[in-house]
Amino acid sequence: MSQSGRGGVGEAPSFHEMWRELAPIGRDATTRGYRRYAWTAADTDCRAWFQAQAESRGLAYEVDRNGNQWAWLGAATYKDPTAGDAVVTGSHLDSVPDGGAFDGPLGVVSSFAALDELRGRGAEFTRPLAITNFGDEEGARFGLACVGSRLASGQLTPEAAHRLRDGDGITLPQAMEAAGYDPSAIGPDPERLARIGAFVELHVEQGRALDLSGDSVGIASAIWPHGRWRFDFHGEANHAGTTRLVDRRDPMLTYAETVLAARREAELAGAVATFGKISVEPNGVNAIPSLVRGWLDSRAADQSTLDTVVAAIQQAAREYADRHGVDLTVVRESFTPVVEFEHALRDEMNKILGGAIPVLGTGAGHDAGILSGTIPTAMLFVRNPTGVSHSPAEFAAEDDCVAGVLALADVLEGLACR
Amino acid sequence: MSQSGRGGVGEAPSFHEMWRELAPIGRDATTRGYRRYAWTAADTDCRAWFQAQAESRGLAYEVDRNGNQWAWLGAATYKDPTAGDAVVTGSHLDSVPDGGAFDGPLGVVSSFAALDELRGRGAEFTRPLAITNFGDEEGARFGLACVGSRLASGQLTPEAAHRLRDGDGITLPQAMEAAGYDPSAIGPDPERLARIGAFVELHVEQGRALDLSGDSVGIASAIWPHGRWRFDFHGEANHAGTTRLVDRRDPMLTYAETVLAARREAELAGAVATFGKISVEPNGVNAIPSLVRGWLDSRAADQSTLDTVVAAIQQAAREYADRHGVDLTVVRESFTPVVEFEHALRDEMNKILGGAIPVLGTGAGHDAGILSGTIPTAMLFVRNPTGVSHSPAEFAAEDDCVAGVLALADVLEGLACR
Repeated sequence: MSQSGRGGVGEAPSFHEMWRELAPIGRDATTRGYRRYAWTAADTDCRAWFQAQAESRGLAYEVDRNGNQWAWLGAATYKDPTAGDAVVTGSHLDSVPDGGAFDGPLGVVSSFAALDELRGRGAEFTRPLAITNFGDEEGARFGLACVGSRLASGQLTPEAAHRLRDGDGITLPQAMEAAGYDPSAIGPDPERLARIGAFVELHVEQGRALDLSGDSVGIASAIWPHGRWRFDFHGEANHAGTTRLVDRRDPMLTYAETVLAARREAELAGAVATFGKISVEPNGVNAIPSLVRGWLDSRAADQSTLDTVVAAIQQAAREYADRHGVDLTVVRESFTPVVEFEHALRDEMNKILGGAIPVLGTGAGHDAGILSGTIPTAMLFVRNPTGVSHSPAEFAAEDDCVAGVLALADVLEGLACR
Repeated sequence: MSQSGRGGVGEAPSFHEMWRELAPIGRDATTRGYRRYAWTAADTDCRAWFQAQAESRGLAYEVDRNGNQWAWLGAATYKDPTAGDAVVTGSHLDSVPDGGAFDGPLGVVSSFAALDELRGRGAEFTRPLAITNFGDEEGARFGLACVGSRLASGQLTPEAAHRLRDGDGITLPQAMEAAGYDPSAIGPDPERLARIGAFVELHVEQGRALDLSGDSVGIASAIWPHGRWRFDFHGEANHAGTTRLVDRRDPMLTYAETVLAARREAELAGAVATFGKISVEPNGVNAIPSLVRGWLDSRAADQSTLDTVVAAIQQAAREYADRHGVDLTVVRESFTPVVEFEHALRDEMNKILGGAIPVLGTGAGHDAGILSGTIPTAMLFVRNPTGVSHSPAEFAAEDDCVAGVLALADVLEGLACR
């Protein structure tokens, strides 16, 4: 990076200053994890930060119809919507419950830092450049990931979005409105996406591949297909002290057996399967539950493996449910097919970065994966020394973060300044 | 019951009117279950109902230092605290989450109805009589059952009561104060208890013993020893899509295995063991949990069986935890030893009721069990045709409820009018 860490607009905050400003927003005092859920006060603070970053760099700031934020350089050029050659980079600022500092924000901070770096280099842009913050990537509040990019690309209809509710029964449009955004026009945004020639998302790696290979930065090859299934185990509420075991219809037993079946089937298939979220009614110490609702997250390298794993888990769950007099319904709440990132863009990035950069698949979903169905997209990963993510312990070393900024700057220069 | 269903004070609501007034309080519109947690608005409404019942019958109403409600007949006599011969009946009005209509309220409503019945008979009381509503019997909010009677009898110290917190971090004293009660004097109440010669609690049966024997009403022999243990499984939060199975420390797996171990051990020993309440952090669909907290409720006919069952469950949990790199802590949150109800009082009731009444043990805890360490106590059970309790489906037939009122009236007449 240029020595000052600042770009052409003298007042732009440095890489370190950006992190310092973001660090306290939405952080829980006890867990030290982040709780930046879509359209909450913490999210609003993150959005204000993004707008301030855009304005401090003289970028044209706008919010699209789905609440995604954009900061444009070369707005004059971009206003020719037929060109379709804009280079866009960015990520998201929201978090999972008690998430880490890097998942999302590293991509946004690195985008601004890469622009500063390029201005420091005196780069001359021949294409419009934009930095983005996609809304509600994690889906922590409404249960569906990548809502901002799904809406923009038409993978989530406005009607379905209107039905999304958080744990308090608040709908997505109500939440947007409460945060000061107009939800009346949410929906597909083909004109905006048509302006984009390439979208590159930088992200902290969420596994240990780069750690094991000894590299600071990698390029994504593909995102595993993945989905979320809700298992509703309906039993019969009853007194935990007086109901004989033989008279019970206890859905917690069926849930427990299903959790273990998921692990077993994933292990057999080389996939991953996780029950990380649960909701129990009535959830009383001395009451057999009437309902145990468990969410399965499962992913595999290919579609047929994933289908096999999830079918086996469902079959095991049904057998257990029958045995305990429990009724089971399974609802697929979301599904994302395998995403192969565009080979031409990936190859071009590899060439720009000197060819010695590892290419790796990942089990994590991203806005870049959603948008890959509509526009050419690619991803850069920054080493995660422990592989830990979605946790307050998530970490990336400063040297690796700097290497990520420089790699992103090189890629943007190669794509937008040629 | 006397034909009018009313007692000596003409304005007292009938048995049916009392039920009608109680029915809507704290009832959830969706589940149709009751959510009458201690010191909430619903609890306040139940308490106002109790006070109105007392006053409509010309009874002397008071609240003791622990928030338990009392309605006294023959206050002049009871004011001789050295007599120690008062006959007290009653139960509780709070509920488990989504509880039924009968658990608790049947005892309170039947107490007032029995008094009305006795007044209709022209009974002449030779001892003071009181009807009570003990506070926070279910422990749904603060996790400890029978708080009102435990405090009064010294089985819960004021210091420990001050440390009780609900799910929102509100302490018991704060909750009492918010409900308009003075928490400054909570603690042992030996003088009040010394006034009591017998406490009889009527309760809906929470098993099927009376249904299987074909009786409307039974007398309690003993309450099984029971306790609650909190199992904290500490793992490592991580991304559900990118963390290899071998790198995981997933506490949900350990929890699941422990749930199944509890069932297995209880089955082997002829006891009961239930995991009905759970709390997960961060509880995100795509996050391996950092913490799974599960509550075990276990009971058995005798202490040594219970000790064996709980020790075996803990040992299994520790083995699983070690295997998955999960840290386990187990805290016993409450424990109630076996309660043998006083034989003399039980025999006297049996004689009053004609001797043909079944005597049965139960796995459920009650204020009568707590108080049995301090004063002579007894219980009457009313048939539950399904055995279902702690559920909106909890039920007792009207004929059986009437039989319960008449049996209680007979007992009170035999004890207080001789």
